[in-house]
Amino acid sequence: MAAGTETQESDAASAETVTASIIGGSGFTGGELLRLLAGHPNFEVSEVTSRSKAGKSVGSVHPPLRGTDLRFTEPDDLESVDVLFAATPHGVSMGQVDEFFEIADTVVDLSADFRLETEDQYDEWYDGHQCPEYLEKAEYALPEINRENLPGAELIAGGGCNATATILGLYPLFENGILEGDEQIVVDVKVGSSEGGAGGGDASSHPERSGVVRPYAPTGHRHEAEIEQFLGTSVSFTCHAVDMIRGASATSHVFPSGPVSKGDLWKAYRGAYEDEPFVRMAAGGSGVYRYPEPKSVAGTNMAEVGFELDPSNKRIVVFSAIDNMMKGSAGQAVHAANIALGFEETAGLEFLGLHPVGAP
Amino acid sequence: MAAGTETQESDAASAETVTASIIGGSGFTGGELLRLLAGHPNFEVSEVTSRSKAGKSVGSVHPPLRGTDLRFTEPDDLESVDVLFAATPHGVSMGQVDEFFEIADTVVDLSADFRLETEDQYDEWYDGHQCPEYLEKAEYALPEINRENLPGAELIAGGGCNATATILGLYPLFENGILEGDEQIVVDVKVGSSEGGAGGGDASSHPERSGVVRPYAPTGHRHEAEIEQFLGTSVSFTCHAVDMIRGASATSHVFPSGPVSKGDLWKAYRGAYEDEPFVRMAAGGSGVYRYPEPKSVAGTNMAEVGFELDPSNKRIVVFSAIDNMMKGSAGQAVHAANIALGFEETAGLEFLGLHPVGAP
Amino acid sequence: MAAGTETQESDAASAETVTASIIGGSGFTGGELLRLLAGHPNFEVSEVTSRSKAGKSVGSVHPPLRGTDLRFTEPDDLESVDVLFAATPHGVSMGQVDEFFEIADTVVDLSADFRLETEDQYDEWYDGHQCPEYLEKAEYALPEINRENLPGAELIAGGGCNATATILGLYPLFENGILEGDEQIVVDVKVGSSEGGAGGGDASSHPERSGVVRPYAPTGHRHEAEIEQFLGTSVSFTCHAVDMIRGASATSHVFPSGPVSKGDLWKAYRGAYEDEPFVRMAAGGSGVYRYPEPKSVAGTNMAEVGFELDPSNKRIVVFSAIDNMMKGSAGQAVHAANIALGFEETAGLEFLGLHPVGAP
Amino acid sequence: MAAGTETQESDAASAETVTASIIGGSGFTGGELLRLLAGHPNFEVSEVTSRSKAGKSVGSVHPPLRGTDLRFTEPDDLESVDVLFAATPHGVSMGQVDEFFEIADTVVDLSADFRLETEDQYDEWYDGHQCPEYLEKAEYALPEINRENLPGAELIAGGGCNATATILGLYPLFENGILEGDEQIVVDVKVGSSEGGAGGGDASSHPERSGVVRPYAPTGHRHEAEIEQFLGTSVSFTCHAVDMIRGASATSHVFPSGPVSKGDLWKAYRGAYEDEPFVRMAAGGSGVYRYPEPKSVAGTNMAEVGFELDPSNKRIVVFSAIDNMMKGSAGQAVHAANIALGFEETAGLEFLGLHPVGAP
Repeated sequence: MAAGTETQESDAASAETVTASIIGGSGFTGGELLRLLAGHPNFEVSEVTSRSKAGKSVGSVHPPLRGTDLRFTEPDDLESVDVLFAATPHGVSMGQVDEFFEIADTVVDLSADFRLETEDQYDEWYDGHQCPEYLEKAEYALPEINRENLPGAELIAGGGCNATATILGLYPLFENGILEGDEQIVVDVKVGSSEGGAGGGDASSHPERSGVVRPYAPTGHRHEAEIEQFLGTSVSFTCHAVDMIRGASATSHVFPSGPVSKGDLWKAYRGAYEDEPFVRMAAGGSGVYRYPEPKSVAGTNMAEVGFELDPSNKRIVVFSAIDNMMKGSAGQAVHAANIALGFEETAGLEFLGLHPVGAP
Repeated sequence: MAAGTETQESDAASAETVTASIIGGSGFTGGELLRLLAGHPNFEVSEVTSRSKAGKSVGSVHPPLRGTDLRFTEPDDLESVDVLFAATPHGVSMGQVDEFFEIADTVVDLSADFRLETEDQYDEWYDGHQCPEYLEKAEYALPEINRENLPGAELIAGGGCNATATILGLYPLFENGILEGDEQIVVDVKVGSSEGGAGGGDASSHPERSGVVRPYAPTGHRHEAEIEQFLGTSVSFTCHAVDMIRGASATSHVFPSGPVSKGDLWKAYRGAYEDEPFVRMAAGGSGVYRYPEPKSVAGTNMAEVGFELDPSNKRIVVFSAIDNMMKGSAGQAVHAANIALGFEETAGLEFLGLHPVGAP
Repeated sequence: MAAGTETQESDAASAETVTASIIGGSGFTGGELLRLLAGHPNFEVSEVTSRSKAGKSVGSVHPPLRGTDLRFTEPDDLESVDVLFAATPHGVSMGQVDEFFEIADTVVDLSADFRLETEDQYDEWYDGHQCPEYLEKAEYALPEINRENLPGAELIAGGGCNATATILGLYPLFENGILEGDEQIVVDVKVGSSEGGAGGGDASSHPERSGVVRPYAPTGHRHEAEIEQFLGTSVSFTCHAVDMIRGASATSHVFPSGPVSKGDLWKAYRGAYEDEPFVRMAAGGSGVYRYPEPKSVAGTNMAEVGFELDPSNKRIVVFSAIDNMMKGSAGQAVHAANIALGFEETAGLEFLGLHPVGAP
Repeated sequence: MAAGTETQESDAASAETVTASIIGGSGFTGGELLRLLAGHPNFEVSEVTSRSKAGKSVGSVHPPLRGTDLRFTEPDDLESVDVLFAATPHGVSMGQVDEFFEIADTVVDLSADFRLETEDQYDEWYDGHQCPEYLEKAEYALPEINRENLPGAELIAGGGCNATATILGLYPLFENGILEGDEQIVVDVKVGSSEGGAGGGDASSHPERSGVVRPYAPTGHRHEAEIEQFLGTSVSFTCHAVDMIRGASATSHVFPSGPVSKGDLWKAYRGAYEDEPFVRMAAGGSGVYRYPEPKSVAGTNMAEVGFELDPSNKRIVVFSAIDNMMKGSAGQAVHAANIALGFEETAGLEFLGLHPVGAP
């Protein structure tokens, strides 16, 4: 899908530069944010914090950044900036959001802390919420379903990676009435090891994690909450760890009540995504790569979405693939920030990806 | 699951030795068969055929067999043996089965040619059948669902790898009335690259195949036919290639109409498998390996089966994992042959597997 | 190493745009070239040829290019352009170079056909040369050792990937007299599967190629010729295939005749590379990534070089790592073309790489 | 190489059974030991200790052992057995060896604590030795170079994995006078992640460890001490971590002073290994696997050794490959114990390995 009118920002806006700092910069997500902002024409990075790595160069943790002189700073010393990106573990931002807004006018939080709309949801899926008064203020970062609310947003809540892959796959079916909300929906997700973050523990050690097809979160995955929030229905969600580092691939098996043709599906998906700069369709065709694959989008902010009809079971199989670190986290955050701040939508996110590529 | 009474064969039987030849020995499955028979106390390997490799040592193709003096022979020169194992591509055996029985009293075919029961099924799922009169004679090799018909069987039809994983996972639910046949069943399978066989083409080349989560056979996979034949209901079946070499992992999402407890499930699975020497349960517990994983059974003839309940969606998630080359092919064939010929059930199949192990 | 004065081109030059076509665009290297030129401010891609894929979209072969409308054309229909990039197998360009220059003023050849200086070398290491009169005209593409001859070059010969890694590691030792040419030099190289190109055959199939440490070209690798040409001495060179897709890592073990300190080495390497935009040092330090690794430069045009002293054996161990598709091929070619045509040196080559990243 | 006369033990000896316990059974090496002893006709496992996992089933840590009822016990509660296997980290056994001999008549230690012959070596390469009086008593476990001293040995010291691979590759050259001890020897080793043991830390996490060619121990690796002890000369040794789990591959580049033919090499290696049950040659030939590869021996106690001549550099390149967990550790220990106790040499070690196989 080629970039459409949404990406046509004024030259004036593009020329603007704002300052940004990153909290939690030694983690995988923080490193990606830093990499993206370092190559972004509208952001100037002020500080990158890391309690454990304070004083060390960012390149000593993130090799691609070896060329920069930036060093991690203590989070307590943050100076005022225009935009604050928080790449902290779940539960941290909700306890510090007041302080965040003393430092910056715009806060982009990549954790789960502001993704859900109500305190009740946090009570049900997480361990409650410390700052529920901010939930209404927060805007979900995924532009494909929330673009109209992002311009000028002050608190942006990055979507979960598995939720993002799932929502992008299923959203057009709901938008077009192909699904109505009472159908059986099975979502079987395969994810890479970067989802576990740096460190990880025994299960993430190379000898134990290599070559796996490992059911984890067989039921009750917290991303179900987001999916249900945006699709309006519950899904039967199961996650498997597989042998890749980046990537989330969601296969959704759905059973529409009425008859659906391939043409109906193409119409629904094209209608939803043909103007989207970061969603493209892959559904059939020739060659090796016929359907969405994490490999095809690795390192990029692109989502691939595709489908196949199974007439004998009255089933639609929907495939969606993203790079969990990019479209599923740091890339999505920058995309949303671009819109919030009036920058070119695709600024800093132009990398096309590689071929061939392994398990990036 | 400890070996039960089924495995108690008489010493007399164990002492017997029969001769065996393998047709199609340069392929992956043929190599595994050869390896298993070479270490089997009751088989003496006579010939291993390969048109393309005739005259070469078997170790030049299959490194683990470098210690043997055996060389591939032309398939046209096969001499009489007691048992003939056919590891040829689908469609070959059905055209030569008369000749096979001129050479041997017992034929074990690892292709799809005799797995289905009726000519109609072959018309629907394959390109018809050349020798339908043998279909009734053939016995499906999977002992867990067909043990009683294997003793003395003359034509054994090895099950498909993905079908085997799926059937072993779901069979106890049908046997115990937890599923009745009219429920929605989604089966999402992840497989390794050895399923494509030696050679493979562009999509199987290392640069293109590494790190994939690649939908292949998104709908209409031929193994559906076997699954439906034995479970008595159709399934919504989708296969993904992932980055491993050996292994098939089936995740089945099922929605029973009535209430089901964990106790009901344990009872069903224990009842089905506690006496099975090659099925073990893995459902929860502590540590890194809580559910079935291909890694845990790699190189062995073991199947792991486990499950989880998803009360909020009234769903049972069933996990089953096998080594597609072993339990899904060569190992299953030897297991069935052991029963057919009155040998110790586990003879030649005792290898426990390795830990740690990567993507075997 | 920060970019030095070499990268300061005039704005006027940067604004210029030339047309370019790629011969052999369906291979891995051709795809990388296309990707780089598509994102390059000074190139406009005219045609991309592929005999086998003519008429198909470039995105059907190279997923990252799915967003473009470009289709492969027949090589016989090439129209005139400013620059022609040839990504054909070795031996093709030498037979067509006259025709290339009828189409374009500047030819950048990525094969081995013009890397060596004399016909004798081609007689010794290859199967002779069909067009030896062009050898003198050709300029080796590696700017770090041949920058001064690249501006205005009409025929640019891309270096071999393994030779590039090796030369970059050892060159400063010769430049600074630490090695003099009569020492023992052992170069042990580890490479990814993309070096074998698309297709590849049995040894490149995923089941056979995964997880290998496979000696290939244990002796007599053709890249020795280039290395000797530029270092002025022969090397004991051995290549191993390891489990990655992109990447070449050269470990050179050298035994200088005189005493050498770490300070001497730092001085030699800094002197050689501190102004180079695409070479950076990694020699010790803390953290996970202390020495050059292909992962650290995957997807980028960067080379990492580092070393360690082994006083007890009077040995220097030199490590150098590149992405064989980039610095070892397409990236090097674009870098050289940038210099030849007076563009910004780093234009189109700014991608920093990813962290974490698997085996890209 | 077929098994020779050394493996012909009397039936009487084979029938004997001894009791054995394993200290440190929750680590990778301890798990392998347990797996091997569980399938060994002459060993009955009494206890397997693990301080951190005491009370848990061994199968909860090592999935292949899920079928056994054995549980980890506290190391302080060990009862008397015939043989004690210590799979503890370096430095533990030397502090407890007196207690070990109170429990058992035969101690097989897999750490580095008794591999070197003198206290001086431990002062130089390790942090000294707490029990140097045992050093003379200890016998190095590698039968290929120390078989004559193993029968009846009371303290067996398992060799280091990288040392084992290197020694097996180079030993025949010294035995046959092709090398004399004053030549330059470069050993470039590639190892899998299991060498780091369970756990491992950041550098061993899947995202950071996958796809690496990572120089670790670029100089000064402790295994140099063993290599020098047995070959009588120092080697220039460098280790690289590559993407596999099991496996150590040593490529030794040596420069003999006199002329050497392929015939000389074959004679030297055949002479050394043709009667060895666990060494086989792989040097050239056709097919995919022409030289030693860790994949070819994965899961087995086999070592592959091969070579190539490089006449232009007067170099011999020697390749040797083992499974670091087997021939490089647990398998070597069992092999040595078999000889020490008069059992069939190959007992418990007959597994042939798998094909295809990934990165086991």
